[in-house]
Amino acid sequence: MPTPAAPRPFETRKADTLHRLATDIDAWVSTASPTGTPYLMPLSFLWIDDTILLSTARNNPTSRNLQATGQVHLSLGETRDVVLITGTAELVEDLPEDQANAFTEKTGFDPRLSNYPFFRVSPTRIQAWREVNELKARDLMLEGKWLDA
Amino acid sequence: MPTPAAPRPFETRKADTLHRLATDIDAWVSTASPTGTPYLMPLSFLWIDDTILLSTARNNPTSRNLQATGQVHLSLGETRDVVLITGTAELVEDLPEDQANAFTEKTGFDPRLSNYPFFRVSPTRIQAWREVNELKARDLMLEGKWLDA
Repeated sequence: MPTPAAPRPFETRKADTLHRLATDIDAWVSTASPTGTPYLMPLSFLWIDDTILLSTARNNPTSRNLQATGQVHLSLGETRDVVLITGTAELVEDLPEDQANAFTEKTGFDPRLSNYPFFRVSPTRIQAWREVNELKARDLMLEGKWLDA
Repeated sequence: MPTPAAPRPFETRKADTLHRLATDIDAWVSTASPTGTPYLMPLSFLWIDDTILLSTARNNPTSRNLQATGQVHLSLGETRDVVLITGTAELVEDLPEDQANAFTEKTGFDPRLSNYPFFRVSPTRIQAWREVNELKARDLMLEGKWLDA
């Protein structure tokens, strides 16, 4: 196996993570029923105002789980360029039109046409790492606050 | 956006899925606590005897969740080439040495050196899709049995 790159400093890791949040289209969204049945689904997202907007049909397992527990753990794509976000989710009934438009423009899908609700995920913890040598300093945000370098 | 490829026939989709199971290194592993807190983590895996072998430290959240609920939902990598597996997991205390060796050879990491336990995931449902046009026939396995074409 090739030697992994040197661990990125905090500021680089944060900048890389913000870039991924701005440009990635899909996230793996992990939720659970109140009795502990896990559910994993890829969903498109929009990063806006330091929150993550998602949308899925009102009666999908993801949607039901978010409404029941308000808890989500989600990752952006790559298993060797991990961005892992713990957050609280709330159903947003009255999303401002400009945010819904921004969601549609980025993801190519307009949840309003299918009467899907939006969920807003407020991150409480954000972690980022590529290889084992970045595990030690993987926290970028804790308790909803970006850490200092 | 480019027009997506035509939906793959069942046999192609099954063959592609078995290829991914044989060659992919990492999976996104979604578990939950018995009270509904979701947990998502990338782990290396080995597909063997129609089951998925995983390993992680005995006291990690994934490990504790698997021991508490026996339930897992996992995906192989790509959000636009989805392989999504629902399964039951059990901790394996006495994994045959040849299987542990095969795990180490494929993943490049030997859980025995860190005294990590193995978990065997028995799939109950396997789904595979690339784009929306494959969602309709996404089930390849139900109730632990591969479907017919």
